[in-house]
This record gives sequence, C-alpha cells and structure tokens, in this order.
Amino acid sequence: MSNMKNAIVGQSGGPTAAINATLAGVIEGALASEKINAVYGMRYGIEGLLAENTVRLDEIFGTGDENLKLLKQTPAAYLGSCRKKLPSPTSDKPEDIALYEKLFAILEKLNIGYFFYIGGNDSMDTVAKMSVYAEKIGSDIRLIGVPKTIDNDLMATDHTPGFGSAAKYIATVAQEIIRDCAVYTVKAVTVIEVMGRDAGWLTAASAIGREVSGYAPDYVYLPEVAFDMEAFLEDVAAAFEKHPNVVIAVSEGVRLADGRYVGEATQSGSVDIFGHKYLGGTGDTLIDAVKARFGCKVRAVELNLPQRCAGHLLSKTDIEESVRIGASAVEAATNGISGEMMLFERAQGSEYVCSIGHKSVMDIANAARCVPREFINERGNNVTDACVDYLKPLIAGEYPVIFKGGIPEHICL
Amino acid sequence: MSNMKNAIVGQSGGPTAAINATLAGVIEGALASEKINAVYGMRYGIEGLLAENTVRLDEIFGTGDENLKLLKQTPAAYLGSCRKKLPSPTSDKPEDIALYEKLFAILEKLNIGYFFYIGGNDSMDTVAKMSVYAEKIGSDIRLIGVPKTIDNDLMATDHTPGFGSAAKYIATVAQEIIRDCAVYTVKAVTVIEVMGRDAGWLTAASAIGREVSGYAPDYVYLPEVAFDMEAFLEDVAAAFEKHPNVVIAVSEGVRLADGRYVGEATQSGSVDIFGHKYLGGTGDTLIDAVKARFGCKVRAVELNLPQRCAGHLLSKTDIEESVRIGASAVEAATNGISGEMMLFERAQGSEYVCSIGHKSVMDIANAARCVPREFINERGNNVTDACVDYLKPLIAGEYPVIFKGGIPEHICL
Repeated sequence: MSNMKNAIVGQSGGPTAAINATLAGVIEGALASEKINAVYGMRYGIEGLLAENTVRLDEIFGTGDENLKLLKQTPAAYLGSCRKKLPSPTSDKPEDIALYEKLFAILEKLNIGYFFYIGGNDSMDTVAKMSVYAEKIGSDIRLIGVPKTIDNDLMATDHTPGFGSAAKYIATVAQEIIRDCAVYTVKAVTVIEVMGRDAGWLTAASAIGREVSGYAPDYVYLPEVAFDMEAFLEDVAAAFEKHPNVVIAVSEGVRLADGRYVGEATQSGSVDIFGHKYLGGTGDTLIDAVKARFGCKVRAVELNLPQRCAGHLLSKTDIEESVRIGASAVEAATNGISGEMMLFERAQGSEYVCSIGHKSVMDIANAARCVPREFINERGNNVTDACVDYLKPLIAGEYPVIFKGGIPEHICL
Repeated sequence: MSNMKNAIVGQSGGPTAAINATLAGVIEGALASEKINAVYGMRYGIEGLLAENTVRLDEIFGTGDENLKLLKQTPAAYLGSCRKKLPSPTSDKPEDIALYEKLFAILEKLNIGYFFYIGGNDSMDTVAKMSVYAEKIGSDIRLIGVPKTIDNDLMATDHTPGFGSAAKYIATVAQEIIRDCAVYTVKAVTVIEVMGRDAGWLTAASAIGREVSGYAPDYVYLPEVAFDMEAFLEDVAAAFEKHPNVVIAVSEGVRLADGRYVGEATQSGSVDIFGHKYLGGTGDTLIDAVKARFGCKVRAVELNLPQRCAGHLLSKTDIEESVRIGASAVEAATNGISGEMMLFERAQGSEYVCSIGHKSVMDIANAARCVPREFINERGNNVTDACVDYLKPLIAGEYPVIFKGGIPEHICL
C-alpha cells in the first residue's frame, strides 16, 4: 500500500457526448491498476481543484458496473467543466507562481501521483503549463492529457473522442432535414449551420450520407476556404436547375477573403476568455442573401447544442474508443509517461484499424488541425470522396443506449 | 374482380416522423383487402392528384416486407406534400365547381372507390369539403381522413400520430441540453424554443424528464396562457436562487395578454396560405430580455426541423399506432364509412390502452385542441403532473430503426 499513489481526473472545455465515456475509461483503468489507490474527480476542472472541490470516484463507481455503464452514455461533463486559462508557469508575477504552488500543494495533500485532464486545445494548454511547472519543481506527478472535442481539431491524433458521435448526429440530421425539405415542390433554400470555429470537420460530416443513401446537402462550405458570397449565389442558382429544394451545410466559422466572419455583421463582437469570438448568425446571413437574390422561401437551421450533447445517438466506434483511450491514459501514466497527450493512430489500408499512442503535449496545445485542402473540392463548395472515406468509419455502429421511461438514462453527481 | 375498386392515398401538410408509418398501414391494409385492387399514391397531395401525378404503390410495396419496413422508419412525406386549400364545395363561382368536377373525374378515371388523406387540420378541411361535394353529386367514393400532426392539436382524438415521436425527441433533447448547460458554474439562461403555433403540447413534452430522471426545464411556457414578461423575469430570478444554470422551454406561439405573439416584434409579418403567421424569434426575444435584466450569459436553442423529422429516435408506441390507424382507415372505408376521420381513444384507468375509432370530419376540421387549463399550473409557468401522466405513455418504447453505414436507412420515391 505504501507505494501506491492516488489519481485525480478532471474534465474541461465544452461538453461532448463522449467525454464521460473517456472518464469511465480512466476510472476503470485506475480501479484495475495496482499502482493506484483512491481515484479523485475534480468538480469543474482545474478551477474546482483550486477550490479543493473533489469527489471520490472509486467510491461511486467501485461497487459494480451499472454506474459505469450509465456514465458511458451520459452526455456533457459528469464532473462539471471550466474554461480557466492558467498563467505562464515561468511568469515573474508572484501571484501566478502562487497559483501553481497552491495547485501542487493540493495535489500533494491528496497524495496524487497521476493527474488526468480530459479536454480540447485549451485543456492541453493547461496540461502543458502544469508539466513545465512540475519539471521546474521536480514533482514526480505524472500528468496526462486525454483528448476530447467534437471539433476534431487537435494536432497529432487521427481524430478526437467525441467527434464520431457528433458527426453521426450531424450526418443523420442532415439527411432527415433533406427529406423534410423535399416534401414540397415550392422553390426553397435551407441552410444548416454547423458548429466549428476554425475547422470544418463537423460540417464535412453532413456529407457522409452521399456515400450511404445518396442524400447529402447540395453544397458544403468549410472555414478552411475563403467564402465568396457571389460564388455561393451562383452555386444556389445551379442547384435550382436540378431540383427546387436546395439544402446547404455551412460552418458557423466561414470567413470572407478579408478574414471577417460571414456571420460577424450580426454579432455582438464579444469574445470568450480565450479570445475566441462568439459566432452564430452565419446561416441567417446566407438566407438573407438568398432571399434578396431569388425571392424564394428560405430557412436557417442552427444545429446548436444537440450536435454536441445528443447522447441518444452515439457512434459505437466513438464511445468504445473513448473508453479505451481513457484506460490507456492510466496505463501510460503508471508506466511513467508524463507531459503527453494520448492520441489515435489509424493504420494504413482500406480496413479501419485504430491504435492508441501518445505524444508530448507541447507539440499539440494551442494549434489547430484543419481539414486539409485535398479533402475539399477545387471550387471549395463540397468535400471530396477521400474526406467521406476518412469520416465514415468514425460514425460506424450504434451504441446500445439504455432508455428509461422513453428517454435515455443518465447518471448525475 | 369486377366488384373491386382501386384506392388512392395522399399526404398533406407539414412532415412528421410517423406520417409514412401511417402510409405503410394504409398500403398494408389495402394490399390485404379483398375489396381493393390497385393502390395509387398521389404525389404532393391533392395538388398532385389534380395534375394526375400518381404512382402505383401496390407495385412498389406488393413484392415483400422490406420496403414497407423502411417506409415505416422514413421521416417526412414519402409521396410529397402540399398546402393547397380547396374552395368551398358550395361556391357559386364556376371555376371553383370546375375544380371539384376535375378532381372527381380524375378519381373516376382511376376507378377509385376509396380515398385516404393523411394530414392535420388543414387536410381534414380538404376531406370535409370533398365529402360535401361527393354527397352533392351522389358519388360513392369513400373518403377517410387519417390524422397526422406533431402538434397533437386535432379535435376528437386522444392524441395524433407523429406527436409521440416528436415528444420523445423533445423530452430527450431537453434533458440533454439541461445536462450540457449544467457543466459550468457561471450564471446562464438557456431558452429552448419549441414548435407549436396555438397548442403547447410539444413544449409540454419537454417536462416529461421530471418524472423519469428528475431533469426538466425550470419553467415551461405554453401558448394557452397569456405570457407576462415581468412574471417571466421574476421566475428566472427565483430559479437563480436554486442553481446557476436556468433552462426554460417556451412555445414559439406564446402571446402577450393583448394577443400579439412574443416573437412578433422580430418577424416579417408574412402569413402562409392558410393565413397563419410565420413565427420564430420567441427564444431570441426572451434571451434579450433576460440579458438586459440579469446581464448573464444567455443562449436560445430553436429545436427547429429535427423535432418533426428525427426519424432516428422514434416512439415505438407512436409508430405502431400510426401503422394501425392507417390499416384501420382501410377497414373503415371498405365497411362503407365516409366523411370521417380516424381517431385514437384512450381507455380509462392507469394502464395505457388505446383503441381506434372514427368521427365525422365536419366536427374536426378547422378547430384546434389546446392543452387544457388543468394540465397547466396556476402561475402558468409549468405543466402539472396530470399532464406528464398523459404524455408519458405516448413516448414509451424505442422503435428499432435500421441503420446502414452509420445513419438510418430511408426509402425514397
């Protein structure tokens, strides 16, 4: 017992439908490890840890599989989340260093040997900074980042946990909206606005139906290519030549050639704590332009929160991989790895095979992996078949969600 | 054979996730009937019939169960829909009577004995007018209305086909949004805007989670009660006393005491062909008011099209009943019933038992069944337990949707 250390795990950044599956993987891995004693959870990420707001996950989940099963299918963040940005670990401001001292004193007090932080870009920034500080003070706490983001925009990993389920929801709902719009013969343009500030992966997912059912939006516009309003209106005119019900998918983050967001004109201009602009209104901007040009019926459908929290429609591949990467994080940490982020590697070849590795978090934090140009057609108004081939395995399989009284059963703290 | 007549079926009004299940029921019933020969489908409702745009459904679906199975899980309207309003059958304008003459001549030419029209209020108006004209000219064509609307606002029936699946989606997504909003500790108000112009049934469905998981919106505002902005802001203040993440469900159709829609100020004022105002923006109006009063984070989530076409999440009860009511319509028509709408009757008692009846369509068309006052609490900011008890059986069970390549498989004409 004396050699054993405790583990702590936190969740950070925006909710996804799979972040709790990864948490379940960490808990399962930690419960099974001979090197780990208690398993703490930080409430509301690093912010909660600073307030010593923790829970004993080994007590909640150590008694049987039932709770873990529910955790895997519960969307959002079971432990709560935060968007706290840590100061530089090499800052010369005393209050910045005092924050790190406090953080590591709390970890010491809890006898933590293994620290797991599940999150996206901004959360990897937290792990990177804590790793720098840990090295500076010679701490032997193993710090591991576990990726999570529906945006699929983390460097170094083939894809991110949570993306597959969001992509499955988007591909499914896009097809349903296309069917819905096809019932009338009146000329109409429907614009589906999809999340994605800088990376178009989620919007690209709306096109998957093309290779499955033959139904996909007429056009797909990603933020990786400058948006040209006149070219867009030409595209709409060309689609009207084929059928009266035009459906467009557009990323909330598309920008004009001068760098301004298409939806920016209708925005308040406020930014979040990481300096990201709040977006939205891109779909409304496009339908206003279509209405002015064609005078037809228009509708904007913002997929909004359900695309990141639709726990009722989960990719089996995504949830199983999300659990696995959590368990692998524990294995890596107990093997001495620290300052690294867990990642997915896809094997070459036509069969989908995914293995788990890890890489220094320094190479990953604060950079975004966008949709490569070869995944987008020349005109920039759709994705290529290679892109759909990349996406398809990630939405494969339906995770068997447990329902109660007609709605999915969740577990809550 | 000489005694046999043909049947024709059409779909009209807005799409739902279950209208094709009812179509499948009509087809199954007609294929099995000894009194029916060919089964025609009108493309795009009565408008398509006037253009003699029909398909032979017995040829498409008579060869095996596979296509019917897919039809039952395909959302929107397989045959296409329309929003055509027929003139008065007792009009003294020659062009109005000419339209009826044309319609019945086409039915005669197709040797139609049985006419089925699946739709909501406005579609029942079509059946009622055609029934008046049929009686006037002594036609023996049996005309049957089969209800369909996510709004659940048809008179005489306990509930409508399509409502249960929409309600299941709304109850599920409301719970998921509540979980999503709960991850941060920052004060925030999220307003979920639900469809429903005059009747609050769909918005009421957001509260079902209360009796299942304990999670439901803090408040639920229906169009049946006059909306008071000051009372609403008081409600929000009271919710903030309990937790920082306030979630509100509101019907797009809520009105102020003077009869104006809450979302009206932000609307274009345009009306559809039936004189209904286009709504929307109710959620935005509320979050603007909340932001002005509390200065907190706000977000409006319009559930939009997915609430009526989410074929990936179907109520087993709804789909099975929707099929049954279609088959029963054929049985009624071949037994000589005409000018009636099929309906659901719920047995008294705690166990849910639903039988199918029919009633004169004259009593049903152009009237709406709203949420009764006893289903809404005194302050008008939530539904009662009796309302949830009414709703719960309608979302029960998960219909086993067939997926292909990660997304639900649909059938298309």
